[in-house]
Amino acid sequence: MQTLQVDLGERTYPIYIGSGLMARADLLAAHIVGRQVAIVTNETVAPLYLQALKQSLAGYSVTEVILPDGEAFKNWETLQLIFDGLLGARHDRRTTVIALGGGVIGDMAGFAAACYQRGVNFIQVPTTLLSQVDSSVGGKTGINHPLGKNMVGAFYQPQAVLIDTQSLTTLPARELSAGLAEVIKYGLICDEPFLTWLEENMQALLSLDQQALTTAIERSCAAKARIVAADERENGVRATLNLGHTFGHAIETEQGYGVWLHGEAVAAGTAMALEMSHRLGWITEAERNRGIRLLIAANLPVVPPKDMTPEHFLQHMAVDKKVLDGQLRLVLLRDLGDALVTSEFAHEILHATLGADYVALVNQLEN
Amino acid sequence: MQTLQVDLGERTYPIYIGSGLMARADLLAAHIVGRQVAIVTNETVAPLYLQALKQSLAGYSVTEVILPDGEAFKNWETLQLIFDGLLGARHDRRTTVIALGGGVIGDMAGFAAACYQRGVNFIQVPTTLLSQVDSSVGGKTGINHPLGKNMVGAFYQPQAVLIDTQSLTTLPARELSAGLAEVIKYGLICDEPFLTWLEENMQALLSLDQQALTTAIERSCAAKARIVAADERENGVRATLNLGHTFGHAIETEQGYGVWLHGEAVAAGTAMALEMSHRLGWITEAERNRGIRLLIAANLPVVPPKDMTPEHFLQHMAVDKKVLDGQLRLVLLRDLGDALVTSEFAHEILHATLGADYVALVNQLEN
Repeated sequence: MQTLQVDLGERTYPIYIGSGLMARADLLAAHIVGRQVAIVTNETVAPLYLQALKQSLAGYSVTEVILPDGEAFKNWETLQLIFDGLLGARHDRRTTVIALGGGVIGDMAGFAAACYQRGVNFIQVPTTLLSQVDSSVGGKTGINHPLGKNMVGAFYQPQAVLIDTQSLTTLPARELSAGLAEVIKYGLICDEPFLTWLEENMQALLSLDQQALTTAIERSCAAKARIVAADERENGVRATLNLGHTFGHAIETEQGYGVWLHGEAVAAGTAMALEMSHRLGWITEAERNRGIRLLIAANLPVVPPKDMTPEHFLQHMAVDKKVLDGQLRLVLLRDLGDALVTSEFAHEILHATLGADYVALVNQLEN
Repeated sequence: MQTLQVDLGERTYPIYIGSGLMARADLLAAHIVGRQVAIVTNETVAPLYLQALKQSLAGYSVTEVILPDGEAFKNWETLQLIFDGLLGARHDRRTTVIALGGGVIGDMAGFAAACYQRGVNFIQVPTTLLSQVDSSVGGKTGINHPLGKNMVGAFYQPQAVLIDTQSLTTLPARELSAGLAEVIKYGLICDEPFLTWLEENMQALLSLDQQALTTAIERSCAAKARIVAADERENGVRATLNLGHTFGHAIETEQGYGVWLHGEAVAAGTAMALEMSHRLGWITEAERNRGIRLLIAANLPVVPPKDMTPEHFLQHMAVDKKVLDGQLRLVLLRDLGDALVTSEFAHEILHATLGADYVALVNQLEN
């Protein structure tokens, strides 16, 4: 088992990474103060892991809250089911909410924990690669609003994150790839040598080699923990974690949540950020191609939906959380492994990036 | 103008108290960072003060969100109207939410500010006595759930509280009295000399003497600021601010929110806490009577609804936020001006308190 620390003063917490950690009752018990626990999970994950997790919680009064599965349910109505479950079983302020599932479950269970009786304890047990390397670390929680993704939420840190790498053996291939979009992101924004490692190990990751997965998760979480510790509330460097996300959110919003997986939208958005960074003259064509090839190697889409015009993108991007005083800011690359957040770009270059022919670009890469 | 400070480290903020402060554009501007402002108010307050406040916000892009009035609307559906207004007008993370109204508006606007894009700036402009002396200070925000009051919320501190005492001139007498329940509370829990002052000045307060009101507000806010600074997240002494509230919340829940005003329910609950403290032998009969007489002098109810049995009370009290690991804790008085939070009482004494004949007690006081 590997243990990383997210350094946030009095809100510091550990990330445990290893095989079979759901069976480690001792790790869970170390982060539960009262006698009440509520496991929040969904209809897909519950049949796979709920019993295993409950066995590690013998002696506690456990409430199960099983939500419908999918980004389309990341809304207030579904969140309300968590509050109903907690209040129905009379959970008090010392209860611990445990999120068992992917990013949607973690975001909703975390937001419920942040709001229930104005804040109760919270443990993340992420079961998808995407949630293990990204959303379970750093304390961002929330739900979607019809007018924008993650528009309602809280910064709320868990007591611990417990990553059981065995849970990836039941993950659909498409979701594994979606998680790799965020793994590749860490290489692009702050760890160029990791890109080389990923190029060499992509097939091992896709074939679920446990050692390769553990390395990738650890390196990703370490990068995220470092960035979050430096900027918990996203006043600066933390925003670089959103490489590809502003474009990607626009895709998710336009298509309706849940049609594209989050990681898939981020992959296409990352391709756009690479293209724009190249058009700005910050990275070379070869560097752009290297990034896009890695996304393709992870079986990720790098072409935005063909019915989306630049106007569609701009409309959704105007409500992005990185907009300040009406000015759009984007995460772009000064270099591979070196991201920045900036509003200093010619609008024409943004427009050209949004309207670029990504199909032709991919065809060219494949020839 | 008087200025108090709530000392909370990097979240320290001022409370301004004075006549005509809504016209002080400079005070508002000092606490607004961006160019966007959203005023959240209700249908009752808007015709009285919205234009005046907007005149002090010339130069800002102002969005108005006017909610229906009343505790019955302190729920998710109404909160959603605030998010709709903010997103509809594309407010970004640097926006400032201003709560203009009573406690319900302050709690909901504050919770919306806490959650919108995971937290934006927030200014309280409380217009009722109750919100001026209690809910606008200390950062408690939230909404009700069908199974319990204030069960969903956040600790979220404003940038500033601006108390314009002139707004009390339009307050219905019943709501003025409801606010006095919380004023009297401060005397009972931590400021015995203030009880004497209140006994001497109750008529001045009820006839809206501006100087008496200013003194009462200042002394109440100072007490609250002191307690909140010592215990922001209610791990200890802050819970004493809930004198009468556990009984009171049970009354509000049983009767349906909005039938009794919050302050009225707290007044009856405070009478019950005085009775229980007396039954436990901690305060004398004369002290109990002194407290209850002061509540009566403020035109407040001190008799719980006659259809409420001890079982009704116990059922609602079991979901109180002060319950820990299944054990009910109550705020009681060791002495006038000296409150404690305790679960150490015989259940029979609680039961006798819930079933006591408060009508007979009041009749006896009046003879």
